[in-house]
Amino acid sequence: MDTKQSTQINNLKITSPFWKRYRKLMADDSIPFQWDMINDNNDVEVENDPFAAGGSADKSHAIANLKIAAGRMKGDFFGMEFQDTDVYKWLESAAYVLNYAPSDKLKKEADSVVDLIADAQEDDGYLSTMFQIEMPERKFKRLQQSHELYSMGHYIEAGVAYYTITGNQKALNIAKKMADCIDSHFGTGEGKILGIPGHPEIENALARLYDATHEQKYLDLAKYFITQRGKDPEFFNKQNKADGADRNFFPGLDTIGNAYYFADKPVTEQTEPHGHAVRVLYFCTGLAHVARLTHDKELMDSANRLWKDIVKKQMYVTGNVGQTTTGEAFTYDYDLPNDTDYGETCASVAMVFFAKQMMETRMSGQYGDIIEKELFNGALSGIALDGKHYFYVNPLEADPRASHGNPGKNHINTRRSSWFACACCPSNITRLLASIDKYMYEVNDDVILSHQFIANDTTFKNGVEVNQESNFPWSGDIKFTITNQNKEDFKFGIRIPSWSRNKYDVKVNGDSVDPELQDGIIYILVSDSEMTITLSLDMDTKLVRANTKVKDDMNKVAIQRGPVVYCAEEADNKAPLWDYRLDDKPQMDYKYEKSLLDGVGVIETSDAKMAQEDGDELYYTDDISWKPAKMTFIPYYAWANRSEGQMRVWQDINR
Amino acid sequence: MDTKQSTQINNLKITSPFWKRYRKLMADDSIPFQWDMINDNNDVEVENDPFAAGGSADKSHAIANLKIAAGRMKGDFFGMEFQDTDVYKWLESAAYVLNYAPSDKLKKEADSVVDLIADAQEDDGYLSTMFQIEMPERKFKRLQQSHELYSMGHYIEAGVAYYTITGNQKALNIAKKMADCIDSHFGTGEGKILGIPGHPEIENALARLYDATHEQKYLDLAKYFITQRGKDPEFFNKQNKADGADRNFFPGLDTIGNAYYFADKPVTEQTEPHGHAVRVLYFCTGLAHVARLTHDKELMDSANRLWKDIVKKQMYVTGNVGQTTTGEAFTYDYDLPNDTDYGETCASVAMVFFAKQMMETRMSGQYGDIIEKELFNGALSGIALDGKHYFYVNPLEADPRASHGNPGKNHINTRRSSWFACACCPSNITRLLASIDKYMYEVNDDVILSHQFIANDTTFKNGVEVNQESNFPWSGDIKFTITNQNKEDFKFGIRIPSWSRNKYDVKVNGDSVDPELQDGIIYILVSDSEMTITLSLDMDTKLVRANTKVKDDMNKVAIQRGPVVYCAEEADNKAPLWDYRLDDKPQMDYKYEKSLLDGVGVIETSDAKMAQEDGDELYYTDDISWKPAKMTFIPYYAWANRSEGQMRVWQDINR
Ligand SMILES: [Zn+2]
Ligand SMILES: [Zn+2]
Repeated sequence: MDTKQSTQINNLKITSPFWKRYRKLMADDSIPFQWDMINDNNDVEVENDPFAAGGSADKSHAIANLKIAAGRMKGDFFGMEFQDTDVYKWLESAAYVLNYAPSDKLKKEADSVVDLIADAQEDDGYLSTMFQIEMPERKFKRLQQSHELYSMGHYIEAGVAYYTITGNQKALNIAKKMADCIDSHFGTGEGKILGIPGHPEIENALARLYDATHEQKYLDLAKYFITQRGKDPEFFNKQNKADGADRNFFPGLDTIGNAYYFADKPVTEQTEPHGHAVRVLYFCTGLAHVARLTHDKELMDSANRLWKDIVKKQMYVTGNVGQTTTGEAFTYDYDLPNDTDYGETCASVAMVFFAKQMMETRMSGQYGDIIEKELFNGALSGIALDGKHYFYVNPLEADPRASHGNPGKNHINTRRSSWFACACCPSNITRLLASIDKYMYEVNDDVILSHQFIANDTTFKNGVEVNQESNFPWSGDIKFTITNQNKEDFKFGIRIPSWSRNKYDVKVNGDSVDPELQDGIIYILVSDSEMTITLSLDMDTKLVRANTKVKDDMNKVAIQRGPVVYCAEEADNKAPLWDYRLDDKPQMDYKYEKSLLDGVGVIETSDAKMAQEDGDELYYTDDISWKPAKMTFIPYYAWANRSEGQMRVWQDINR
Repeated sequence: MDTKQSTQINNLKITSPFWKRYRKLMADDSIPFQWDMINDNNDVEVENDPFAAGGSADKSHAIANLKIAAGRMKGDFFGMEFQDTDVYKWLESAAYVLNYAPSDKLKKEADSVVDLIADAQEDDGYLSTMFQIEMPERKFKRLQQSHELYSMGHYIEAGVAYYTITGNQKALNIAKKMADCIDSHFGTGEGKILGIPGHPEIENALARLYDATHEQKYLDLAKYFITQRGKDPEFFNKQNKADGADRNFFPGLDTIGNAYYFADKPVTEQTEPHGHAVRVLYFCTGLAHVARLTHDKELMDSANRLWKDIVKKQMYVTGNVGQTTTGEAFTYDYDLPNDTDYGETCASVAMVFFAKQMMETRMSGQYGDIIEKELFNGALSGIALDGKHYFYVNPLEADPRASHGNPGKNHINTRRSSWFACACCPSNITRLLASIDKYMYEVNDDVILSHQFIANDTTFKNGVEVNQESNFPWSGDIKFTITNQNKEDFKFGIRIPSWSRNKYDVKVNGDSVDPELQDGIIYILVSDSEMTITLSLDMDTKLVRANTKVKDDMNKVAIQRGPVVYCAEEADNKAPLWDYRLDDKPQMDYKYEKSLLDGVGVIETSDAKMAQEDGDELYYTDDISWKPAKMTFIPYYAWANRSEGQMRVWQDINR
């Protein structure tokens, strides 16, 4: 397969009620809100930033930094080394919004940002406002921590997206000039820095730039950063020493070790993820992208190996990844503590990017499964229903008392924040939600694969039209109407989700069929000019258990219906939530509640008990007395949108 | 009651096989080993110090520091601010050993240490080698962190003990001179420091000095430190500012806040423990001691309030206290995580001190219960069976993989260490175990209360002789033979342990009696010249559950027989331990195994299941399949004396 397939979509319109709401939310609320935030408009007040200790989020100053670098205003740099990326990811989000919700106002704002960025960019293509404003002499001198390539990578992604969608050539030119600058400084050539960035991002960015320009040097440079990583374990130390031992941008980053940066050995020797989760997953996205573009089997094997370990051994049932707050990092296989996890929103967003790149190499249901899992759970949990409050950390179990009272849990925020001193997550979830159209189809010469149940009307360049109707995820009845004017045969693929693998029904033009399941996908030959395919998925409420190697989930179940993982929240269930226990084989009743949480499917059961305690002793030798109890579960993504309280994904069960 | 009761014991000889072994271990192994350690003899190699990051434990240098301060050798100070206390606590331990195992060699070593300390002490009584050697100008200038009064307090305790047992007057004189020095510097008088130490210890030390000397000024000074604490929330800040903001002895101790030091408000306003656990418990020991000596009801109410919160809301079933490694601290009521707890050995030792002071005020079974709980579990866990390896942290659940792989658990050591850079715990457990004779009886004018089932022969000053025979904790049959030559009536009290409260049998001279239980104690009038009392305690194996407010113990049980809490260890049970589940009402078989772990009672059951896993998926919708399994439990205190592996106190149960 090659890079062109995704471009074969001519026009795609999302009609899914669930996703239309989010798309509108992006356009009407999130993107304008973030615009105000990065511009420090309206004295916007930051609510509840749990990271205030690591810097203040009273303001963003991100646009201001660019203005200062551009010479448009005077002032000092403010923020993280990568503060610029808040602007770039806003621009990328805006591009995607403009693709489905044209707006002169937004277009003008975005164009003005492109102009500003062009002004801030130096003649040689360099752009990183902290260094330009505060320490120009240290450019590219402390790559372990500088985030310069991370920042420029994010611009390149934004510029490519904005150019592709709006045709703004300037946006692309900035990206190319930036990439040329990097190309002139990095690589194996004489006088170049034989080094890598502390935080991956540039790899996938350069591959995207290659997709847009087909200029080989960008792909070569991307591959260089992929293969150079881990080759020279002394690179960071050498640079730090030359730059000055006591000049860290963040304490301890010089001594944390190469493993934290996923730079302890070449990726071809890496067997499992470790260190900072988002670094690993951004790298994996670039890895899979470059491996595909360069047909490099060894790199693709590495991507497969890492994919498998993450998904089969280190992923929460909600799709969240990163088990510890210490270094925002992976820990080890089957270690999945629920009340101390990290599960950064960015990590779940990056899992979608990684999955998409894997899927483009090989059509396999597992990649669509993970995209779906993140879209309906782990990633989506990162944004409030109002589009203007966010989670950085996504726990599977939360208790405000614990977050305030036990230091090992004080990274678990039980109220969503409007912004963060380190604001990577908000604009990451918006750029994903504004671009879900990119994550629905996979196409090659004779296959159109619809791997997400996101209702849509789509026309392809070959004239094929696909109409998918459904009320997914609340309903599992999906109807595809396919118009094939040219009557050229092709195979229409549909992913059968892993949660429906044992029970689903397919009808073609009203007749039941039973196509073979190939790697999680069924294929139906389309030869007529019109065809309907209806699919009924298994929408029974499931009790999910974890592998018995997972200590923290033993004798517990997670509740899942379709792709949606449910949780108990204190707003519906009297605390403490740990005092509930499901009976064996509980009857689970599902109903859609239009007025709750902007419309959600709710699951209730009366087959539960709650522990009763009358005494004030700490330990007893008698049994607990239980009384019958009702439990109510809401989708995990929708938690923390009402009053602050306990939340729990894994429920005790008596079986 | 007053202070004289404990002195009414004339002679006490421990005959308990269990405790004789430990007493011999102290004399033959622990005290000689620690002597070598503090003297840096034989290039003694420190195994497995988990705290190496906070300083090196390659050497102790504690005696060397004193020699340098005494002018006997040249060199630099090395170690923690309170390195001197390793010597003092060794001296106190040695005193107690000399009380039951006279040894010329040990006496000579201890006398030489007293001489050395006298030489190191300054003319005005001051002694803290770090300050004397490195920064004499900073004496008493940064009390928040200096540990000067903590160090001198430990000497005073040691000096009083050594004087009391050996008659060494010099040892007492050093203590008095030290206390006089402190008295001249601290208090409400003009020109004095109206301040408190960051780490309590001096309070109880001064009260002990008063007990030995009956000099009122020492009691007054002790009371000053008790009541002054928390009165001036700016004291530490003011001192730090004057001393220099950047001159911390340990990073962050200036900004951690008064609550960490239990100095956020006066103790009469403190409702629950918080901050550093050992600080709180040393303070509580002094508080109860001073409250009793001064008949101060308000202070005693404070001690009662704190006692109750700790024991009823923040104590692990093993007696361990301190739930978090962050600040070695308490967290909040009913927060008792098992795999991230701290449970410092010193904290359990201090609980015994606190309980003893409470008991001296009021004879109540609860205090004896806690002394027993610590002696057989939480405190005893701190020392290996060889007497030469120690735990600082005592978890209730451990997994070597987690300790190495999850940073939130890397304070959980799964192998015992021979020493620590911060070596507070080893000499604390030895001074407790060498002095358990102090924790067995409580006496007042007409009562002799035997509150521990530690077999012994004891004569009292009034001529009464008590012989207690038993093989406790393995057997619950206790026989008291009381000889009362003078035939003066008195009441003999016996604590009925909380775990036996529902089932016990008492016979006086062979006849069953049923004396009233008063506050956990039965009293039997002794008027004849000889009397036997036999007591049969409930030695059934118990399944203990926690209050349902404790999240981490829900649907789990701890196994307890007599006072001994049991655990499953990987050496006896195939890992992973979390895959076991007890059946409802499991049959538990007890047997004593002479050759195992120096002789322990072992509990086995065949009424358990182990989860089976064939697949390599992370999540499943089918039930777990269980197969019958045997489980073996050993006493908690004896864990980590064989191969390194998992350990678990709380077992899942299916009921
Ligand atoms: Zn983020
Ligand atoms: Zn200690």
